Amino acid sequence: KINSTRVNATIHESCQWGSTPDGGMNRLTANDDDRKVRDWFIATTKEYGCTHKIDAMGNIFAIRPGENNNLPPIAIGSHLDTQPTGGRYDGILGVVSGMEVMKVLHENNVTSYAPLAVINWTNEEGARFPPCMLGSGVWAGQFTTEYGHARVDAAGITLGNELERIGYIGTEACSFETNPILAHFEVHIEQGPILDQAELPAAVVGGVQSMRWYDMKVVGREAHTGSTPMDRRSDALLGAAKMIVEANRIATTGALADRGARATIAVINSSPQSINTISGDVQMNLDIRSPFDEDVLEIERQCREGFDKISTEHGLTLNFETIWVSPAVNFNETMKQCVRSSALEIGCHLQLTSGAGHDAVYTSKRVPTAMIFARSRDGVSHNPAEYTRPEDCAAAAQVLLGAYLRYDDL
Amino acid sequence: KINSTRVNATIHESCQWGSTPDGGMNRLTANDDDRKVRDWFIATTKEYGCTHKIDAMGNIFAIRPGENNNLPPIAIGSHLDTQPTGGRYDGILGVVSGMEVMKVLHENNVTSYAPLAVINWTNEEGARFPPCMLGSGVWAGQFTTEYGHARVDAAGITLGNELERIGYIGTEACSFETNPILAHFEVHIEQGPILDQAELPAAVVGGVQSMRWYDMKVVGREAHTGSTPMDRRSDALLGAAKMIVEANRIATTGALADRGARATIAVINSSPQSINTISGDVQMNLDIRSPFDEDVLEIERQCREGFDKISTEHGLTLNFETIWVSPAVNFNETMKQCVRSSALEIGCHLQLTSGAGHDAVYTSKRVPTAMIFARSRDGVSHNPAEYTRPEDCAAAAQVLLGAYLRYDDL
Ligand SMILES: NC(=O)NCCC(=O)O
Ligand SMILES: NC(=O)NCCC(=O)O
Repeated sequence: KINSTRVNATIHESCQWGSTPDGGMNRLTANDDDRKVRDWFIATTKEYGCTHKIDAMGNIFAIRPGENNNLPPIAIGSHLDTQPTGGRYDGILGVVSGMEVMKVLHENNVTSYAPLAVINWTNEEGARFPPCMLGSGVWAGQFTTEYGHARVDAAGITLGNELERIGYIGTEACSFETNPILAHFEVHIEQGPILDQAELPAAVVGGVQSMRWYDMKVVGREAHTGSTPMDRRSDALLGAAKMIVEANRIATTGALADRGARATIAVINSSPQSINTISGDVQMNLDIRSPFDEDVLEIERQCREGFDKISTEHGLTLNFETIWVSPAVNFNETMKQCVRSSALEIGCHLQLTSGAGHDAVYTSKRVPTAMIFARSRDGVSHNPAEYTRPEDCAAAAQVLLGAYLRYDDL
Repeated sequence: KINSTRVNATIHESCQWGSTPDGGMNRLTANDDDRKVRDWFIATTKEYGCTHKIDAMGNIFAIRPGENNNLPPIAIGSHLDTQPTGGRYDGILGVVSGMEVMKVLHENNVTSYAPLAVINWTNEEGARFPPCMLGSGVWAGQFTTEYGHARVDAAGITLGNELERIGYIGTEACSFETNPILAHFEVHIEQGPILDQAELPAAVVGGVQSMRWYDMKVVGREAHTGSTPMDRRSDALLGAAKMIVEANRIATTGALADRGARATIAVINSSPQSINTISGDVQMNLDIRSPFDEDVLEIERQCREGFDKISTEHGLTLNFETIWVSPAVNFNETMKQCVRSSALEIGCHLQLTSGAGHDAVYTSKRVPTAMIFARSRDGVSHNPAEYTRPEDCAAAAQVLLGAYLRYDDL
């Protein structure tokens, strides 16, 4: 049995770096707080008898030996980076749950069949260095290490340079081939409202929906707001505003909407940012999701069509580029069965599809993978108000322990 | 007669500080380039027999004595600051035209009846430190010096500190009462398309339209773009986008549009700028203009009404604040007559209303004021492509010389 008090204490212990006055977190990838929580993660897991591997993307593998140390470890992983205005559970609960499972083995002197690895994956959020799930993505061979290192933040600093600065470019190659694992479990908060509505603490995750990110550049013509007639303008921000409204309309209309379409623009940069100069240039990012790959493509098609019409109407040029593709994922049946049996022991019978991406998406490309969701109060996440009750954190960790032990037995 | 070659050479001489590779200008108020062009302005006008006053807002008065030096000077003023992506004529042509008039008096050994002042007003653009026309506004008693010094740029630096840093907080009080002028002429590029369509080099300016600036803050709720259902969002950027579209709709519809309404949003800041976190917070600035004060108020009323509806629909809160009010202005009849007679000598019979604000707006509150417009090619301004042909620059300076001499005679 996991120790509920310890799970929750460990969550908040890890939040001492990067916490914000509003009770949330701001621990962007590879900043100084990220360095400190990494140091803490290594020091703490050392106490449970772990050795450590750090790979070229800064992913940290804390490995506790088992009976058969010629086997790759069974892994439990998630992330310790957060959104700029994030909460204390997203990612953190997953790593801490893994640490708790390890601690339970350790204090009960259990020797598992395979070694156990708890993994802190780098830059899952993609908030500072888009795209997201980058550390696990490179490990799974979806991106090269060079691509990973070359990601830049808004200030133009590369992830490679920042990892180097905080001392977390490891000597291990970042690859499932040279640094394999047997399987991957991940606990995560749901970040949506379904478990809260169902009044259940935890659930099996069946898979993850399809998602794509885009970079958009709208170019118009700078001109004086006072002396330029309304019908002689190419206002990039007006066009961009119509595109934001159009993307929303597409995702909230008809059959696409009924099947769960989502389209969001949340990053916008207009230039030259002067009150009396009509915007000449807007950069935005579009995030499209749906449980169905073909619906994501259809939303994209409708967006392109609508955006082109708006561009023509306002004399704008539009550059529209796909920067990230993550098709819908179904997790491994055997792994899910382990989670399902463990979840049923505490009365959790629901299976959900994840609306958010997780490191488990990329590990699932290479090894059997499954996930467990913990209830999010009011479904709120990516917000300082994000909250998962202590008993729900404990429930998810307990389901993980049971699922992990079952899989290790298998 | 003014010297056409010299006028145009002096324009480009002054543009050596702050010019950009695209042929435009980026000389924001009180930056290092602004310091250098101020030094140049003082050094150059010294050669024409001027003494100088610098006031507490950094306005520079280059004064050439006349016959009656107990009288305040007749002034010719405009500005040397530019937009971040501005052109080489906006403001600059006005200061250089004044310098040219002074040079013509000087080389012809003319002693004017009253002294002549050429003024470089501080922060006319308001691009770095909103609102605009700030130096002339403080001088005219429309703002206090404390208010002027306390204006901040996007980085939080105050204008007072920057003026101090570049050595341009003068000892003269910034006030029409203690540092008076008799009258104020201003040459400026039209920044609109009318003279280009009429194929005329210059025009009399009858007055300036009414304008107001607003600060808007839209607050929603940050949430995950992937896991938050479309109908459970309070997306601040979606609301802001609808407001941009709504303001545009109001200004381009019906009688308001027919009477020349303009409404523009050109500054937008969304937070937290993460691709997978729905925007929780948007700041924008709205610029409303019309030839009629009552139309500006009606546009404002309709915007407030429309914005409130959008806020309610999306569960947002809106803070809407007026930050700048500049009522419609009619220039002085005697001064306009001087400009008109001079303009007719070169066949320029048109009188226009200015769509842009100018320092002449604030000087007109205190002393007889008039303006002369020079043709803008294609009506383009606040853009590196802004262009006024050499012969049109010369024409405007020539109209100024004639108008000034007539008024000095009166
Ligand atoms: N869990 C989480 O918030 N990950 C970010 C990846 C995404 O955008 O879905
Ligand atoms: N002339 C000019 O561009 N001034 C800026 C003031 C305005 O916004 O109208």
